[in-house]
Amino acid sequence: MNTERKLKVALLGCGSVGSEVARIMTTHADDLAARIGAPVELVGVAVRRTGRPRPGIPGDLLTTDATALVKRGDIDVVIEVIGGVEPARGLITTAFEHGASVVTANKALLAEDGPALYAAAEQHGADLYYEAAVAGAIPLVRPLRESLAGDRVNRVLGIVNGTTNFILDKMDTSGAGYAEALEEATALGYAEADPTADVEGFDAAAKAAILAGLAFHTRVRLDDVHREGITEVSASDMASAREMGCTVKLLAICERSADGTSVTARVHPAMIPLAHPLASVHGAYNAVFVEATAAGQLMFYGPGAGGSPTASAVLGDLVAVGRHKLNGTRGPGESAYAQLQVAPMGDAVTRYHISLDVADKPGVLAQVATIFAGHDVSIDTVRQQGKDGEASLVVVTHRAPDSALRAVVGELRKLDTVRDVASIMRVEGE
Amino acid sequence: MNTERKLKVALLGCGSVGSEVARIMTTHADDLAARIGAPVELVGVAVRRTGRPRPGIPGDLLTTDATALVKRGDIDVVIEVIGGVEPARGLITTAFEHGASVVTANKALLAEDGPALYAAAEQHGADLYYEAAVAGAIPLVRPLRESLAGDRVNRVLGIVNGTTNFILDKMDTSGAGYAEALEEATALGYAEADPTADVEGFDAAAKAAILAGLAFHTRVRLDDVHREGITEVSASDMASAREMGCTVKLLAICERSADGTSVTARVHPAMIPLAHPLASVHGAYNAVFVEATAAGQLMFYGPGAGGSPTASAVLGDLVAVGRHKLNGTRGPGESAYAQLQVAPMGDAVTRYHISLDVADKPGVLAQVATIFAGHDVSIDTVRQQGKDGEASLVVVTHRAPDSALRAVVGELRKLDTVRDVASIMRVEGE
Repeated sequence: MNTERKLKVALLGCGSVGSEVARIMTTHADDLAARIGAPVELVGVAVRRTGRPRPGIPGDLLTTDATALVKRGDIDVVIEVIGGVEPARGLITTAFEHGASVVTANKALLAEDGPALYAAAEQHGADLYYEAAVAGAIPLVRPLRESLAGDRVNRVLGIVNGTTNFILDKMDTSGAGYAEALEEATALGYAEADPTADVEGFDAAAKAAILAGLAFHTRVRLDDVHREGITEVSASDMASAREMGCTVKLLAICERSADGTSVTARVHPAMIPLAHPLASVHGAYNAVFVEATAAGQLMFYGPGAGGSPTASAVLGDLVAVGRHKLNGTRGPGESAYAQLQVAPMGDAVTRYHISLDVADKPGVLAQVATIFAGHDVSIDTVRQQGKDGEASLVVVTHRAPDSALRAVVGELRKLDTVRDVASIMRVEGE
Repeated sequence: MNTERKLKVALLGCGSVGSEVARIMTTHADDLAARIGAPVELVGVAVRRTGRPRPGIPGDLLTTDATALVKRGDIDVVIEVIGGVEPARGLITTAFEHGASVVTANKALLAEDGPALYAAAEQHGADLYYEAAVAGAIPLVRPLRESLAGDRVNRVLGIVNGTTNFILDKMDTSGAGYAEALEEATALGYAEADPTADVEGFDAAAKAAILAGLAFHTRVRLDDVHREGITEVSASDMASAREMGCTVKLLAICERSADGTSVTARVHPAMIPLAHPLASVHGAYNAVFVEATAAGQLMFYGPGAGGSPTASAVLGDLVAVGRHKLNGTRGPGESAYAQLQVAPMGDAVTRYHISLDVADKPGVLAQVATIFAGHDVSIDTVRQQGKDGEASLVVVTHRAPDSALRAVVGELRKLDTVRDVASIMRVEGE
């Protein structure tokens, strides 16, 4: 151990994650020092307000001037847990310019501007690590970036947002509607006062962009990710899912096309069979499947958010980056050499579950079936229930391009005999 | 990319894993080159017999002189997939002495002699990587060694041997006895002709030693691991487990003691509740839970063995070690600074499920309960069933040190009213 040399760390942000990071840096100082090879010294903590008491953090470390902190020039590692695009982006760039490596949990920024951050890290010979940005404490970034580096990943499929999983799980187990389940999630602290980023799928889409980039060695931006949230999922969707032996989850799905030349990334609610391991991921937990050519199917499961789990991921990165600093080396940088085409949602291959309210008269099923056939969409099952001159028709398709499925739905809507397309939901995990 | 410089690789062993490694090195050559930063060149493959056809491997690369191959002096990375202690140990040591880094899948050797190998790597500035040694393609070594390096791991609990999981799963689902299930496993290629290493728990114990070492930053040898195989598990044990809402799995369990100063590592069959995620790990799959102070409970799941999955892990390590070679750096070495005491099995805290055949007369339960109380072992449930002057008594205890539980069983055996201790099994995962 090098006791002369100290690893100087600056912390940007001291909320639920930052305060845990600072706490563990103190309580586990000996372990961290032994694992890094030198003692860690927290030299500054940038916060919005210095007045508040911060148990365990000496008052003289607090500063509201984050820019001055990252410009000190003697910082080895900057830990950024502020979140959001600015001022985080500017601070991280400044940190690289002043010789620091960066550990961040900032999925929004990485999905928005990852390549520029990587380029800045590269230019200044620094590390950019971000295990905490996806799925909290679950080691997922490092396995994709390093463990599977000798394999070909074909698919990443997972639950990467705890808030929406809590809400959907609640709806499934209690029969509650979306609004009621959201209310409970907010009351219990699982949803923020403004839940938009979670329930509209922005958070999951940012993670999907990051995962797709790592999995396919291709730049995937937030805008490339097809995104649908859970606000339209109804109690009756849940009930239909149950009837099919399924439940509804908000899934992030990153896939390589069958011919290997393009990829798609998407986030949307989907039915998955109850027997699928993702169906038993409850509450705010996350779980991600990774399918690779040689490795087969792997699953990673754990707490997807929260101060402590996220701090664990941050500190794991701190150890790696700290070792590199001491040895004058770097870990892997951006890997985007494959430059696969990022295809639009229409190219994604999936299955649909469609509920139609139709007139209860002969020939309707034939009309409907003709439309599916006209777009080469093969029907798996049809369930027809009639009462009082009205009937409902539930169609589940085989796998087909999303564009074909959407075209089918467009034509169904124009049929006189179709009163309403009551619900459309994708079916995954089979 | 550095196209002048080639990464020279020697492969020791060309069985199911080695041939997959060689095949993927050829088919994915461009990907590997892009990820490492230089093309990979396979310069030699050491085999026992050169006569056999090896599709995809040029005949002039084959050699029976493994020692000469690792002594060439121009090898960057030696991949060892021969298995067993010798000659693998000598070859790896020689490889380090001649400037190569080593990627190995050899759990037996690492559990037997890990510290000496680490020391040799250290001395020669080389890497020793072994993701493939534990749980096949499942990234587990790297997450423990790196992702959780900023956290405190308290427990590792998992199914790490596919052969025994296949056999126990078969017994559970079909009601077959051990011998019949083993026969089927052998016929299907899941068990080797001599299944001793698997069914007696040696393979799982080696993995437990490796996992405990990584989790607790403490040297744990194979001899430190308490080991019981599955050969004594009977169809009636399976039936008892079912009655309790459990199944039987061969578990590897590495635990830090409550006071944090010592660790235990053990492999034995145990009952776990059907609701526990490990209960639904079927066939030859592996799954490992890791519990850490900050991260909480994580699970890793995937194929635990087989040529392709193991090759995936080997090649992931090859990419990491190759990058280090090109950059003149090294990854993490041995981390055994914590030097925790490795406590004997008697100190492990667990629960027992004990079936007794007893005389069906008043006072027997009181006698039995007195013995448990005398060793401070608290009883959770007792189920008593009598017929024809005989009765069976099934006792499930609360958590207690294994030594106390063993002492209880010893005294129960001496009671006149206890005809037989029909079965004893630990209960985990609650």
